[in-house]
Amino acid sequence: MKEVQSLPADWDSRLRSALRDNCPVTARMEPHLRAVLMDTTGHPGRLIRARLALVAGEVHGLGPAAAEQLACAVEYYHAASLLLDDLPCMDDAALRRGRPCAHRVHGEATAILAALALINRANALIGCAFAAQPAVVRLQVLAGVDGCLGPAGLVGGQAQDLRFAESARTAREIGAVAQGKTGALLWLSVCLPALASAPTAAEWRQLKALCVYWGLAYQVADDLADVTESTGESGKTSNRDGPLRRPNLALAVGVEAAQHRLGRLLRQAARALGRLEAHQERWRYLAEFQRTVFAAVAGKVGRRLPGLAA
Amino acid sequence: MKEVQSLPADWDSRLRSALRDNCPVTARMEPHLRAVLMDTTGHPGRLIRARLALVAGEVHGLGPAAAEQLACAVEYYHAASLLLDDLPCMDDAALRRGRPCAHRVHGEATAILAALALINRANALIGCAFAAQPAVVRLQVLAGVDGCLGPAGLVGGQAQDLRFAESARTAREIGAVAQGKTGALLWLSVCLPALASAPTAAEWRQLKALCVYWGLAYQVADDLADVTESTGESGKTSNRDGPLRRPNLALAVGVEAAQHRLGRLLRQAARALGRLEAHQERWRYLAEFQRTVFAAVAGKVGRRLPGLAA
Repeated sequence: MKEVQSLPADWDSRLRSALRDNCPVTARMEPHLRAVLMDTTGHPGRLIRARLALVAGEVHGLGPAAAEQLACAVEYYHAASLLLDDLPCMDDAALRRGRPCAHRVHGEATAILAALALINRANALIGCAFAAQPAVVRLQVLAGVDGCLGPAGLVGGQAQDLRFAESARTAREIGAVAQGKTGALLWLSVCLPALASAPTAAEWRQLKALCVYWGLAYQVADDLADVTESTGESGKTSNRDGPLRRPNLALAVGVEAAQHRLGRLLRQAARALGRLEAHQERWRYLAEFQRTVFAAVAGKVGRRLPGLAA
Repeated sequence: MKEVQSLPADWDSRLRSALRDNCPVTARMEPHLRAVLMDTTGHPGRLIRARLALVAGEVHGLGPAAAEQLACAVEYYHAASLLLDDLPCMDDAALRRGRPCAHRVHGEATAILAALALINRANALIGCAFAAQPAVVRLQVLAGVDGCLGPAGLVGGQAQDLRFAESARTAREIGAVAQGKTGALLWLSVCLPALASAPTAAEWRQLKALCVYWGLAYQVADDLADVTESTGESGKTSNRDGPLRRPNLALAVGVEAAQHRLGRLLRQAARALGRLEAHQERWRYLAEFQRTVFAAVAGKVGRRLPGLAA
């Protein structure tokens, strides 16, 4: 088990160049499809999930190259989900990361095909990243990805999100959607690499709980941003959830209650992290991630939250 | 190497029940998404690729369960591509397999999410089908699937198809689109299972050539059907290629010349099959497949074609 307790100093340049190198472009491809793929992989977001996957892959012994493959895969799944979420038949967004959405520039069909190309490449990268692991780990990885991205995860969360107006619209249902949409990709960054170092049943329970708390916290922060930030601040079309009747905790219970909920989730995450470290020091990178990365996320919602103190 | 020279007698019921059993539905999923998934996997087409993958998987020693997983994966990729091709931003079709298209009944977003769920499950099934193979085979499988479904294969073919009006629109370009759209999925049925029994370089060349001939032949037959059959006969919206300015060889060179081309492709395929059998008898199932299955496909275009005699 390698001792990697913090992000490698060169994480940003390593990830950016890996995202370009692994981008599924070919010499003679259709130019609009190429443009969306180059643009999407060349202008990533904050790379929160990819950073986490990179350090986790190294901590759990996948090796630097495989950790980069895993990080790229997680980022490609995420980028694909954004290309699709922004479509007219989903959120009908105009802006993403401060730029016009791909479908507005290159058409809906090209945006869909680019998402498929990214998902396809991500699957190959995950297969390669775990190719040297024993069969039992590889089968756990296959089942994990299947669960995370399918109807029990990302696809299911998005389907519930779109039909939210037809549901009971309680805070509980908002949480279920958030778990599918946000928790699933965090699971890939946190739990998938951990499989390579055979976590105990107790550690596995805490890891899964951590993904639930982080996923919900992340979504509450996003809900708050949709309500309280302008499109210019967030770089994506804001104030969408209300008109589209999409689940948004800040709209459902109010901004202050949502901020309280965010603080509570991060304290619950901190307790899960404490229990993990009580098992083994190798989990310390996760606590560091909460302090350094999640603090910035929560900081955006304009309030110093308990549970985030360094 | 098992001697399986013809389709198992129970292939139809085996495939239909495997398609239902592997369908990515969960207990508490969003009802529209569930409906599209159940409907798509419960009403498959002629299962040409799945039949081929099933017998190939058994011939090349994957075992019956893994051969079924592979066959389901190929069919799920195919079904996903149809769900997406039919969308308003692509072919804007109304009918598929004699029934209203999924997006017309359940909305575009649900059709897209169902396609993603099928692709996700197909990836897991292929991983499981080859999980017991040596690392070298598994890496070849990963690279093969990546190439087949990405910009060099299915996604790339579809992107060129949609922008065909902007291209030079020659018979050569029609062939390139057909290769991406149709040849790629045949490659998954023919070449992927063959990897498990270590084909020689000479055999591999013939297998790849066979996929090119079959892919082009299949697309020419489809082009002829679009031009010469009514929507009622084909079960999908016909006479679409002309108005949409999509590649169609029968429109480009005329029905008779396209029929000649189809005959020539099938004779080329027969020669590749002859060379394969000259290497080893284990390839005989492919020649039988051309005689029994491709004969029916070509028979649809209303002409007894040379190279198809039993």
